[in-house]
Amino acid sequence: MRYWWVNQNQTYKHETEGGFLWSPKRNRNGRSNRFYDNMTEVRAGDLVLSFCDTQIKAIGIAQGSAQSAVKPEFGNVGKQWDDDGWYVPVEFEEVSNPIRPKDFIDELRPYLAAKYAPLQPNGNGNQGVYLAEVSEAFAKTILTRMGVTLDPTLISDEAIAADTAEEQAQTAIQGRTDIGATQKAQMILARRGQGIFRANVRLNEKACRVTGVTDPRFLIASHIKPWRLSDDREKLDGCNGLLLSPHIDRLFDKGYISFDDDGAILKSTKLPKEVWKHWELTAKDNVGTFNDMQRAYLRFHRAEVFS
Amino acid sequence: MRYWWVNQNQTYKHETEGGFLWSPKRNRNGRSNRFYDNMTEVRAGDLVLSFCDTQIKAIGIAQGSAQSAVKPEFGNVGKQWDDDGWYVPVEFEEVSNPIRPKDFIDELRPYLAAKYAPLQPNGNGNQGVYLAEVSEAFAKTILTRMGVTLDPTLISDEAIAADTAEEQAQTAIQGRTDIGATQKAQMILARRGQGIFRANVRLNEKACRVTGVTDPRFLIASHIKPWRLSDDREKLDGCNGLLLSPHIDRLFDKGYISFDDDGAILKSTKLPKEVWKHWELTAKDNVGTFNDMQRAYLRFHRAEVFS
Repeated sequence: MRYWWVNQNQTYKHETEGGFLWSPKRNRNGRSNRFYDNMTEVRAGDLVLSFCDTQIKAIGIAQGSAQSAVKPEFGNVGKQWDDDGWYVPVEFEEVSNPIRPKDFIDELRPYLAAKYAPLQPNGNGNQGVYLAEVSEAFAKTILTRMGVTLDPTLISDEAIAADTAEEQAQTAIQGRTDIGATQKAQMILARRGQGIFRANVRLNEKACRVTGVTDPRFLIASHIKPWRLSDDREKLDGCNGLLLSPHIDRLFDKGYISFDDDGAILKSTKLPKEVWKHWELTAKDNVGTFNDMQRAYLRFHRAEVFS
Repeated sequence: MRYWWVNQNQTYKHETEGGFLWSPKRNRNGRSNRFYDNMTEVRAGDLVLSFCDTQIKAIGIAQGSAQSAVKPEFGNVGKQWDDDGWYVPVEFEEVSNPIRPKDFIDELRPYLAAKYAPLQPNGNGNQGVYLAEVSEAFAKTILTRMGVTLDPTLISDEAIAADTAEEQAQTAIQGRTDIGATQKAQMILARRGQGIFRANVRLNEKACRVTGVTDPRFLIASHIKPWRLSDDREKLDGCNGLLLSPHIDRLFDKGYISFDDDGAILKSTKLPKEVWKHWELTAKDNVGTFNDMQRAYLRFHRAEVFS
């Protein structure tokens, strides 16, 4: 995990509300710029201190690496920037008590890098900085001053790592020589809940366990033991799946809910209350019984996916 | 649209409830089989008459073309079949009054093909038939006898055609030479509601219009004018998107709901009542105001997507 400082004056609102960082790739004169190049160094899970109007006003957690991206809809802001840039997805949270680093620059000064630091030794901002790396000690000093404890649910690097692992698992399947094209194709279709896996799930399950919807056009065949962690047989095993409504699939797949052996719904402490409430799920508590094979997969889900 | 007859005796329950047809690709002795080869001729929207225990008991609509697939979980049934076969997704509906074609074979006989017909001229079934083509006149005679009017919502070939068109549109983008790699990558990411399109949508929209959920981890950036029909600019335009909960996205994307200029929710007659009820949406009727640009896209959605 690395720590970054971003100067967002003109784009603060756009970037914190839109959930991203964006910079051109190069200066207007075509030369490279260290603070733009830094965008490509950010990784999922990195922490971002958001600086605006001389204050740290928000904390962000990167959700992925940089992508080439055209300029977002900044309106009149940033008209001078090239349209070819770097985009990094970052989820921000505004802090309740913004602080002015200049007010405690004596504490911060020992942790300022000699080069490419976002602040001068006197505590004034450095001109021309967009994204600068800061040391862990520097970042922790600021977080402590703000009394900020990071919301652990904001840190979704596990989920992102899972997505990457899934891509790699699919590529690995495509390269295998020990199984035929048919099995490969079906194992890959199963990743999206399609093909023979879906047919097999429908032999066991007839409705969304949580909402009760029965029309298959509105239901997703969702793995209980995640696809990427399932072996060849488990990837297509109908007992390793449930038919879930799209929003319930999102909760189950990301580990915000699970089920115990008797069908009671388990809710993660990470599940925001507003989601359960707004999706009108407060009356739901039991989803019925499971067969022995489903229960075995559910044990895995509770241990490794639910959190 | 073509018409098919399938003999499902042993696998009737599996295939009608699981929503598919499956056959081996070849006979046990390795020879090709016309009735298995027919699987590859089925197209989305084709009609399937399901024959079991001397009766037509269900009607199906193909949802796509044949895929290579390993054998589904038939249990003890079909142990003699090879594991490499054809799978065709088909949605079946059981008919309320099954009929025995032999009872009106005089009516059907003129429409029986000389070769590969599912019935003999005396009305008995032909041995060894799995999937046989029948003429429109043959199928209509049976449907009329059963008093069946096809449920138009079962025929989802439009939705399937849209998926195919989307794949082709993506391939076309990848091959273009008039735009750079950055723009291509972002246009393709936008298809899944990701990247700069999602950031642009979040600059306008802060919550799911229908459920009110605000946490972006639970929301999908959904195009109003479908991605495949949007031009380059529209594909990334934040005003061409809404942040929707996954189940609401499914309804909006498939045209089961839309919104009028004043934010009233419009429900399609094709939307099954159980879905609206089980997803606890009965109290929802207005989603608030839209800006002029959003309204222009919504006009397109109402005219071309909503049905």
